[in-house]
Amino acid sequence: MVLFIFVALLILSTASCELSCGYHSCNQGEADKLNVHIVPHTHDDVGWLKTVDQYYYGANSSIAWAGVQYILDTVVQQLSVDPTRRFIYVEVAFFSRWWREQNTEVQQEVKRLVQEGRLEFILGGWSMNDEAATHYNAIIDQMTLGLRFLNDTFGPCARPRVAWQIDPFGHSREQASLFAQMGFDGLFFGRLDYQDKETREMKLKMEEIWRGSQSLHHPEADLFTGLNENGYNPPAGFCFDAYCKDDPIMDDPTLEDNNVKQKVDDFISAAHKQAKHFRTNHIMMTMGSDFQYSNAKAWFKNLDKLMKYVNSAVRYKNCFFLWSVKSDDFFPYADAPHQFWTGYFTSRPGLKGYVRESNKYLQVCNQLETVAHLRSGMKSNLRTSKSNVLREYLRAAMGVAQHHDAVSGTSKQHVANDYAKRLYIDVISSVITEGSSNLTFCDYMNITLCDFTQNSNRFTAVVYNPLARAVSKYIRIPVDCTPSYIFVVIELLVPVSEATESVRRNRGNANCELVFLAKLPALGYNSFSIEKYKSSATNKRLFTPKGKVVNPSDDITISNESSIVIVVITNKTSQSYITHFLLFGYFLSSIYFERYIIFKSPTGAYIFRPNSSTPFHCSNDGKVKLSVLTGSNPLVQEVYQKFSDWAYQVVRLYKGIKHIEVEWTVGPIPVKDQWGKEVISRYETNIDSNGYFYTDANGREVLERKKNYRPTWKLNQTEPVAGNYYPVNSRIYIRDAHVQLTVLTDRSQGGSSLSSGALELMVHRRLLGEDSKGVAEPLNETGQFGDGLITRGKHWLLLDTVTSSAKQHRLLGEEAFMSPLVMFGGATPPALQSFIVNPLPPNIHLLTLATTNSGELLVRLEH
Amino acid sequence: MVLFIFVALLILSTASCELSCGYHSCNQGEADKLNVHIVPHTHDDVGWLKTVDQYYYGANSSIAWAGVQYILDTVVQQLSVDPTRRFIYVEVAFFSRWWREQNTEVQQEVKRLVQEGRLEFILGGWSMNDEAATHYNAIIDQMTLGLRFLNDTFGPCARPRVAWQIDPFGHSREQASLFAQMGFDGLFFGRLDYQDKETREMKLKMEEIWRGSQSLHHPEADLFTGLNENGYNPPAGFCFDAYCKDDPIMDDPTLEDNNVKQKVDDFISAAHKQAKHFRTNHIMMTMGSDFQYSNAKAWFKNLDKLMKYVNSAVRYKNCFFLWSVKSDDFFPYADAPHQFWTGYFTSRPGLKGYVRESNKYLQVCNQLETVAHLRSGMKSNLRTSKSNVLREYLRAAMGVAQHHDAVSGTSKQHVANDYAKRLYIDVISSVITEGSSNLTFCDYMNITLCDFTQNSNRFTAVVYNPLARAVSKYIRIPVDCTPSYIFVVIELLVPVSEATESVRRNRGNANCELVFLAKLPALGYNSFSIEKYKSSATNKRLFTPKGKVVNPSDDITISNESSIVIVVITNKTSQSYITHFLLFGYFLSSIYFERYIIFKSPTGAYIFRPNSSTPFHCSNDGKVKLSVLTGSNPLVQEVYQKFSDWAYQVVRLYKGIKHIEVEWTVGPIPVKDQWGKEVISRYETNIDSNGYFYTDANGREVLERKKNYRPTWKLNQTEPVAGNYYPVNSRIYIRDAHVQLTVLTDRSQGGSSLSSGALELMVHRRLLGEDSKGVAEPLNETGQFGDGLITRGKHWLLLDTVTSSAKQHRLLGEEAFMSPLVMFGGATPPALQSFIVNPLPPNIHLLTLATTNSGELLVRLEH
Repeated sequence: MVLFIFVALLILSTASCELSCGYHSCNQGEADKLNVHIVPHTHDDVGWLKTVDQYYYGANSSIAWAGVQYILDTVVQQLSVDPTRRFIYVEVAFFSRWWREQNTEVQQEVKRLVQEGRLEFILGGWSMNDEAATHYNAIIDQMTLGLRFLNDTFGPCARPRVAWQIDPFGHSREQASLFAQMGFDGLFFGRLDYQDKETREMKLKMEEIWRGSQSLHHPEADLFTGLNENGYNPPAGFCFDAYCKDDPIMDDPTLEDNNVKQKVDDFISAAHKQAKHFRTNHIMMTMGSDFQYSNAKAWFKNLDKLMKYVNSAVRYKNCFFLWSVKSDDFFPYADAPHQFWTGYFTSRPGLKGYVRESNKYLQVCNQLETVAHLRSGMKSNLRTSKSNVLREYLRAAMGVAQHHDAVSGTSKQHVANDYAKRLYIDVISSVITEGSSNLTFCDYMNITLCDFTQNSNRFTAVVYNPLARAVSKYIRIPVDCTPSYIFVVIELLVPVSEATESVRRNRGNANCELVFLAKLPALGYNSFSIEKYKSSATNKRLFTPKGKVVNPSDDITISNESSIVIVVITNKTSQSYITHFLLFGYFLSSIYFERYIIFKSPTGAYIFRPNSSTPFHCSNDGKVKLSVLTGSNPLVQEVYQKFSDWAYQVVRLYKGIKHIEVEWTVGPIPVKDQWGKEVISRYETNIDSNGYFYTDANGREVLERKKNYRPTWKLNQTEPVAGNYYPVNSRIYIRDAHVQLTVLTDRSQGGSSLSSGALELMVHRRLLGEDSKGVAEPLNETGQFGDGLITRGKHWLLLDTVTSSAKQHRLLGEEAFMSPLVMFGGATPPALQSFIVNPLPPNIHLLTLATTNSGELLVRLEH
Repeated sequence: MVLFIFVALLILSTASCELSCGYHSCNQGEADKLNVHIVPHTHDDVGWLKTVDQYYYGANSSIAWAGVQYILDTVVQQLSVDPTRRFIYVEVAFFSRWWREQNTEVQQEVKRLVQEGRLEFILGGWSMNDEAATHYNAIIDQMTLGLRFLNDTFGPCARPRVAWQIDPFGHSREQASLFAQMGFDGLFFGRLDYQDKETREMKLKMEEIWRGSQSLHHPEADLFTGLNENGYNPPAGFCFDAYCKDDPIMDDPTLEDNNVKQKVDDFISAAHKQAKHFRTNHIMMTMGSDFQYSNAKAWFKNLDKLMKYVNSAVRYKNCFFLWSVKSDDFFPYADAPHQFWTGYFTSRPGLKGYVRESNKYLQVCNQLETVAHLRSGMKSNLRTSKSNVLREYLRAAMGVAQHHDAVSGTSKQHVANDYAKRLYIDVISSVITEGSSNLTFCDYMNITLCDFTQNSNRFTAVVYNPLARAVSKYIRIPVDCTPSYIFVVIELLVPVSEATESVRRNRGNANCELVFLAKLPALGYNSFSIEKYKSSATNKRLFTPKGKVVNPSDDITISNESSIVIVVITNKTSQSYITHFLLFGYFLSSIYFERYIIFKSPTGAYIFRPNSSTPFHCSNDGKVKLSVLTGSNPLVQEVYQKFSDWAYQVVRLYKGIKHIEVEWTVGPIPVKDQWGKEVISRYETNIDSNGYFYTDANGREVLERKKNYRPTWKLNQTEPVAGNYYPVNSRIYIRDAHVQLTVLTDRSQGGSSLSSGALELMVHRRLLGEDSKGVAEPLNETGQFGDGLITRGKHWLLLDTVTSSAKQHRLLGEEAFMSPLVMFGGATPPALQSFIVNPLPPNIHLLTLATTNSGELLVRLEH
């Protein structure tokens, strides 16, 4: 016996909010009946197959008609005409935009609907962020942007109580922890491993408590978590959207096509089937899907009929509220055998790197704005200044970039271009250099290009440190190395590498990098004067590399106080050592092939499925061209490796720096052989890691991983490689009782440990096939020159004892995502300046220093 | 300089109605500006790719989502929220259905919108009827059904003033005449020959006066007629429907995609281009198309923006109101060279015949209902009786059947099945035999099947004459001819022909037809007792045919008082004679081939395009198997022709009947050779017709046709056969100074005269290709047995002097579409009865005798 009730959403935890609005107004159901909660919703990707602008307006409709403006138009109208109707809305990036276009009358009506709990905001982020490729700093910012809009516009009644991550392709424990700490009462999502789901359905674990943190005392990071029966779609046969193919309810009694009985029977059957997987007599049916409700009448009219005809029978069901607890996460996600969604951990490495870099720019913008605001006695008119408009634009762009089809790399190419354009550094430089119009920001420092520094005889480098503690960092500036340079501290010139030349592609000709150590104050800047040497004598500071072609096993040695890099790297200061550390031998030489088949291809933007478990070498003959920076120089030792025309790396040991820097340059990945390729960087050691490895969650806490194993169900492994990949946002490590190898990344990448002592990261991928998950084009980034995108990035390797490693990699991780920002000015350097009186101790991180639109300071400190 | 006004519709004739509602409320524009009238509309086919029920609900949406319920739902809502918005609606078959489902509140709101002229009904027929294949009796009925609903529901304000035939594939002069006589002020349509349109655009004849009748005094049948610039679609780039691909208006000023200027420029350009084709400073833009406005918000939102941004400039234009006059019609329609829409004149001959037959049933139902009503003292409760419900159902089904994708034969097969099912004779027999439960109606008389007559030893044939004058008609009843029959008048038995056996396909075994002459009173019935003869002696009345195989030129002779049919038919009573009348030789032997090509085929449900101008013989060897009914019998002479297993005809001369009856049986048309075929029946004479021929318009007036000629423009003929085909609803004739050959048909067919003295009709077609006009399936009627539909029909040939022919074929035409209806009962015959005191004279036709729902009599007399 079944009773069906129409309600936006019911959460089964006790209500902490005393307000009667929002979801507290919803129907509590009846104790002795099965309560089916019909949840009308739309899932509006903030860009995917179309750009966010196109989705909003419904443009570019040869791809899909999807127009969010009409969703909000017609939903609000349908709610207005019938007080029994309810709806949830999620993405504030779209809602805030629509809101601005409405007249006062509509705005008042929407406020009424929100007050009555009939239009309920769920999640309330700027977007529904990805969970695999996002950094927690960016997650917090994007949630803040959305929630603040809701609070400013509607007050506390609109506060979302339920997090709604229905579409992301796997779920991070850190995300759950963040939600719990933000005050959410629960979380619902739709995608989890099919084996996991089957197990949960059987064991009635479709709802449980997720323990989001190992370090926080529970229940601080505990979160009620519900898994949706049908992803986020309606049960089969009940999609009533204007773009669905299911038959509507045809209730004309004179009609031969009358299908009321059939529909009612099907619905009751679906409800009973679903109820078998849940412990309580409350189940939820998600009535909506991607960009649905653009013609809300179609949905509501048929839902009204459905409820009218179904609302008759009653079925008793016992309730038992003993929730199980989960403390791992939901990675990796597979929706079928061999279908592991682990490719997207690396898809579009260029975009992923750019998003991570942009996070730093946004933090710097926020910090500098706040400093200016404080200096003006907090009287500056923040809302109207040009820099604030740009900053708001950047905040929104970053919110959009966290979307689960943006930084995830799973959008179409034209949409990825749009995401990148929104972050375009021109905006950033305008914001950062505002008020210092004599400062120049160089966009292409990553490929050793800066017209300003190359063409000036005399200039100043202003280096800003966004961390609240002092740091010393080596800075590299593109210069012309023909003349010599004088400088205030020890510096040297290093010729640009062959790798740099390959990635620059004749876009500039700075032939050297000036390298120097910059000592930087906490949350402040230091300036460095650089002047060309008058003498034309041979530049004594110029060190040039000497090369040879070697087998991977040949010895090459560089060293500093901390490390000796030969074929074997040995840690010198700690008592730990590693006898066999194959850094070069197979580095970058691994390619997972996947065959391009027109009709069905297993690998794509989402899916990773290599055709063999053994990677291929990036060099055709297994040999590597090696060069070493000649002579004994005071600052940096460098080894240059060329695996092929499209695979390079530089290994650097800086004086006084414990970690080893590996700069990889990959691309254009060749595909003329009609094979897509996925390039990994594998580090092999003699660490006895025994199948265990550790990856971070969103740059914050770390989870233990074990090869071919899941903590909560018996895994039937179908993919020995792809099924062991996990998202790496900032670090991955392996260890044994004594020694730990940690690799820090500058962007999100997929990573794994497939054999004891080995650790690998996928750094780039280029595919010719498609995985039939909707994006409908191959992930084949052809780049600016049409022959394939070249990507460059860095790994920081830390080899130390287990205990010492933890302390170091945390600080190093902060220094990676909040690295110094370099700008250039004329000859007169501004004085060194710190914006805080006392630096923070190393165990306190200044996560956010920003000013709200209403002029309040927003400070987030992290222990 | 342009001013744009948003208005439902403006007609430029003076208003005869004094009401301020309806279209009289619309904006009159400004004299010195170009007034662009934006007409938001939807075109809702009453069945085409989906059935009418599926279109109403939006079911079967894998074909198309199209759901009319949502169109009316959302349009009414959009009109309600903004008093500046207007909309026109056309098809009452849909509207009346939607209306019944609305609550009082919505109904009141709709009444308000109608009163304010914001929701305006245009045309107001039950459907937008076809003009080529429809009979005027059925047109009048279907218009009455729709208009009466509007009048009963909304009163005079809702009366449509404008006829709206935007989609039919060619336009009949009779239709214009009927509209004028119904009181319409104007007519708009979208499809006319592309050469005609080009000429009219150049000569500013896109609007003119259409003189609809040769016999009525003008302006009685004059009608202002406007041809739409864009068919019935919006100008390119301005389709804002939720299923269109054009970009919406994106007016966010901060957006890179902002397209306001581009849209405004494009619109003004389109308006100026259109205005060049019109004489006044008022032009109309049809903003809508097939099943559009299911999400009305999308259209109205963008139209609102369009008008807001465009309404600025002003352009002066002179007005000159001197309308040209047209007195021919708009057949045939070609939208491009070689693309003549003349195939549909014959497409689905079975359905066309059924619709024509059903018209008679409906008239009989109306007559009998009225008789019952009068007999009850006009007190019977018409609305609730079962027979009235069925009658209403039949009226609606006939209204639907007149739709321009129904009787036209241009729907998908499953929709054609639905059209036929709606007319299913079971309903008809229930209505007709109501109150005489002892009467039986035999559905399969056309293939000589009736269990009742075959198995009864004694029965009564009750024959009803729906004409208001007495007639004598030969009746044929299926019987078992083993015993003899006795009968009140002269009768005989004729064995079923081979053709009948081919079409019956073992569905019954009546082996004879009983033939007798029934003398019938005006508007009444006569009864005839039939009893099996007790004697087992040889049946003296049984005449059997004797056969031989002949060349077409061999002589075979039958004759009656009027005609001798040999190879030559000679008229005996008139002084006229024809020396060479090839009735058999090439009859049915003509096939126009069309090759089935997968990707593009010129011929389809709409298009007729033979691959040669010379038809092929239906018999492979050019020979015909002939038989003649043996002996000299008192009633009928019959010749049986077998051209092949799939092509038969029987030629009959009845005693005392001037016309010759030709019964053709065609099918299954063989297509194993991968050629679609279009079967014609060609009559060749020595009449000196010289390229002229005459075809009726909707069964009423007759228009002169001339080969390779159009009266109003210089024709560039691209198809020597298809470009000379015209619709024949009831008759076609050729003549010279003395003699006329008239062929009357029992359904609508395409016909022509391609050489002097010849006259042809296309009787059946079966195609394997498709003509890319939207129906997206070949017109390949496979029939009940899967191997191809067999169709049977009749031609009545009248050969006489020109002056005598006119009188005869008019009466004969009435007798064809109002032929007697035969029912069967037990042994006791009801007495002969006429329902009118005095029969009407032959020049007055009782077109309609019916009772309205409110109990009023409806009588239509035609002179």
